[in-house]
Amino acid sequence: MGSQSIYTKENLLDSNEFRKKAHMMVDFIADYYENIEKYPVLSQVAPGYLKNVLPKSAPYCPEPIESILKDVQEHIVPGLTHWQSPNFFAYFPANSSIAGFLGEMLATGFNVVGFNWVSSPAASELESIVIDWLGQMLVLPKSFLFSGGGGGVIHGSSCEAILCTLLTARDLVLNTIGSDSIGKLVVYCSDQTHSAFQKASQIAGIHSRNFRAIKTTRSTSFALSPHLLRSTICSDIEDGLIPLYLCATVGTTSTAAVDPLGSLCNVTKDYGMWVHVDAAYAGSACICPEFHHFIDGVEGANSFSFNPHKLLFTMLDCCCLWVKDSNALIKSLSTSPEYLRNKATDSKQVVDYKDWQISLSRRFRAMKLWIVLRSYGVEKLRNVLRSNVALAKLFEELVATDNKFEIVAPRKFSLVCFRISPSAISKAKSSIIFNSKSETNKSYINEINNKLLESINSSGGLYMTPTVVEGVFVLRCAIGATLTQEAHVRMAWNVIKKHADVILNMHV
Amino acid sequence: MGSQSIYTKENLLDSNEFRKKAHMMVDFIADYYENIEKYPVLSQVAPGYLKNVLPKSAPYCPEPIESILKDVQEHIVPGLTHWQSPNFFAYFPANSSIAGFLGEMLATGFNVVGFNWVSSPAASELESIVIDWLGQMLVLPKSFLFSGGGGGVIHGSSCEAILCTLLTARDLVLNTIGSDSIGKLVVYCSDQTHSAFQKASQIAGIHSRNFRAIKTTRSTSFALSPHLLRSTICSDIEDGLIPLYLCATVGTTSTAAVDPLGSLCNVTKDYGMWVHVDAAYAGSACICPEFHHFIDGVEGANSFSFNPHKLLFTMLDCCCLWVKDSNALIKSLSTSPEYLRNKATDSKQVVDYKDWQISLSRRFRAMKLWIVLRSYGVEKLRNVLRSNVALAKLFEELVATDNKFEIVAPRKFSLVCFRISPSAISKAKSSIIFNSKSETNKSYINEINNKLLESINSSGGLYMTPTVVEGVFVLRCAIGATLTQEAHVRMAWNVIKKHADVILNMHV
Repeated sequence: MGSQSIYTKENLLDSNEFRKKAHMMVDFIADYYENIEKYPVLSQVAPGYLKNVLPKSAPYCPEPIESILKDVQEHIVPGLTHWQSPNFFAYFPANSSIAGFLGEMLATGFNVVGFNWVSSPAASELESIVIDWLGQMLVLPKSFLFSGGGGGVIHGSSCEAILCTLLTARDLVLNTIGSDSIGKLVVYCSDQTHSAFQKASQIAGIHSRNFRAIKTTRSTSFALSPHLLRSTICSDIEDGLIPLYLCATVGTTSTAAVDPLGSLCNVTKDYGMWVHVDAAYAGSACICPEFHHFIDGVEGANSFSFNPHKLLFTMLDCCCLWVKDSNALIKSLSTSPEYLRNKATDSKQVVDYKDWQISLSRRFRAMKLWIVLRSYGVEKLRNVLRSNVALAKLFEELVATDNKFEIVAPRKFSLVCFRISPSAISKAKSSIIFNSKSETNKSYINEINNKLLESINSSGGLYMTPTVVEGVFVLRCAIGATLTQEAHVRMAWNVIKKHADVILNMHV
Repeated sequence: MGSQSIYTKENLLDSNEFRKKAHMMVDFIADYYENIEKYPVLSQVAPGYLKNVLPKSAPYCPEPIESILKDVQEHIVPGLTHWQSPNFFAYFPANSSIAGFLGEMLATGFNVVGFNWVSSPAASELESIVIDWLGQMLVLPKSFLFSGGGGGVIHGSSCEAILCTLLTARDLVLNTIGSDSIGKLVVYCSDQTHSAFQKASQIAGIHSRNFRAIKTTRSTSFALSPHLLRSTICSDIEDGLIPLYLCATVGTTSTAAVDPLGSLCNVTKDYGMWVHVDAAYAGSACICPEFHHFIDGVEGANSFSFNPHKLLFTMLDCCCLWVKDSNALIKSLSTSPEYLRNKATDSKQVVDYKDWQISLSRRFRAMKLWIVLRSYGVEKLRNVLRSNVALAKLFEELVATDNKFEIVAPRKFSLVCFRISPSAISKAKSSIIFNSKSETNKSYINEINNKLLESINSSGGLYMTPTVVEGVFVLRCAIGATLTQEAHVRMAWNVIKKHADVILNMHV
């Protein structure tokens, strides 16, 4: 600090320096996008690679941004799995866009902490507005919208949306029967439901013996059976338990299966249960009229969530949750310490989003969703989603017409689930008797497909991730990265075929 | 889509357009910082202002970024409470910096979803590295660092850190005594502990009758008494209950009070309880050797968290949590669905951060923390934190030497808690007999101070928020916004004095 006053703070937000360095960073990122296809999609580094190249402690003195960016390029980029690569077909996409990026920049620039209305009215109000916009785009029943007496919130993830609604349902029931009965509450889902629900149940104190993951089958496309749901519920009631909550899914993670919302809600309404619809992945597609039927029956549910950060260009993180009974949600999640009391809250004229989520602090996520919706408009967003589906259909046809492969689950959106077919493996292995239904051979078929996937992913040319359904190891090709075009899908198919040929020849 | 192939997707991540628009946004944000003092710090809009000026639904066709930015300037900025204003003294700061902004840009640009190691190795590894760097800067016991057998994670908020550690403690005990005993678990804190802890307890299914907020007093600077803690625990044990978890605080939200960690841990160790130290606000200051003594005794705790997003320039959101027993944390929070299985995880050589937090998806928050630590270095960060404290000391002296005011709680960091003194009100109200200890007059004194605060905040010149401790309404002046310099603090004091004069004259 030298001869300066002890009060003199160095300005870490000088606008000239901000301009200079932020412009530099814009170009760094644009260059990254231009070069993204040059990197292996799946990072090829070994565990612990980074601690061998970075210092053991933070520097005492400042380092120039140029040195830092050099390290980013040399040490960080090789350790990234490139989610924005057009050859990224793993998990589900988390797709970027210019509008989403601009929205993140602006929200970061303002850096307001909108836990309640007064702490930044625009952040709360814009969130309520875009939540209604998006609800209309999905043609959600009016009862889910602020304009119809419901309401919504932007969470960071579906995990949070599921947890918050489960807590709401739990507290509604426990407030009636008493907290000591928590051990009687039972929650339901299918064996295809995202693991987030199991985690939410554990967190909420639902006893693990009361977690019902109802079996689905390939023959019914891995959809939850209303019949099985009812018989499971009845059996629980006979045992003196209390059915609490159903987590239904539109677009499961393994195969994008769709649970039949209408029939399921017909069951649950007889037992006064809370139904949450997790459409994390497939919700985006449902803004297209031709896909809307997948959420038919949502009017019987209590809450609905999906992730614009998957396919709707908002960058991570952005999960929209709508509930019919926002008062119950707020009752479960609100706190009112003295240091947050204010007139606006007391007036009950405003939305304080701290009472709609787990955490107090919250980023201004509505900004990017608003900029995305305005920059692209409903029509363009629908068209891009349609192109993703068309590309997936193309890929599905390529797979289906090659008798070395088979489609494992019917494609509904832009995810294709496939594998090398048992018959191709049997044929390649013709020297021995091959019964694809024997356990040994089932496991051999899985092993071959696992080797195929590892071989493809270690090539760096594309990245897919697997799942296992009904004991079948499946390759998932999730199409929808922003930069993915027809050529990338065709290239992916060629790489897959080439690796399969090698594997099949190796294993005869 | 016209005559184009149905496969042709519009490129929403074109690098030329990205460059052009992101450069435009950099300048928009830099201009915002340059003009930030022109806006009222606390937004002066009325509830519902925004829905009156925005359309009722999302546009069908794209809108140009210029129109969107025009709306941001005209309709969003007036609705913001300007957390980055140098005249923002409310809550605790969430301070921005150029390095933090660059880090957010880069993380947003990469937009990787690092839920496990393989999904982006650099994201997980950089997080473990910077967590150790920061732990060293705090001189945390080695047992909290990865290099010493512990470990840490970056959460979005302290609420999440508290919840995750509470769940860990809960499950450790319930795994031994059985889940049906959840109603016997008791948790402890002081009446000054952040409301996040009460919310976390509700979420975790701790019975509300088993939540102990132990009373503190002004005479002991609102610190939790180890003596009272022990007697409360003993009484609970006599009642057949099980002491589970203590949430101790270093720098409470109301007055930045510090709980005596060493003495508290001496109590809890006799009962095998989990101790979490929430240093959300004051943790940053503890990187300065002269403030480190406030976390003396942390070696007896099980976990420690603080928010670099408050005073350490990382932008919202960034909360660092360290735990000694990371295996217990992981056991409570892990899931392993088929669609996330991979060789790296199976090898147990890597950190999968999905098992250290509530949600699966996670942003690459380590990037900004790394860039902040490198861009500024330890020395400069300490010096800026010291300047904040020096400015708070200056403000405290200005208040203390004016007999119209009084300091309500001793200042330890950069928060000053004060009010118009009862004697000044008594003097102004000399026409009647005034006993500042009568309940009527206590409430009158609070009312006067509340009016003072409202009058100041509605002027737009600065923004402070209140608290109430021991029935006393307190004005909190939280110094530490990045742009705050000596002149802003002196100006704030002049505005406060001017408004107080008006109020005191009005109320005689």
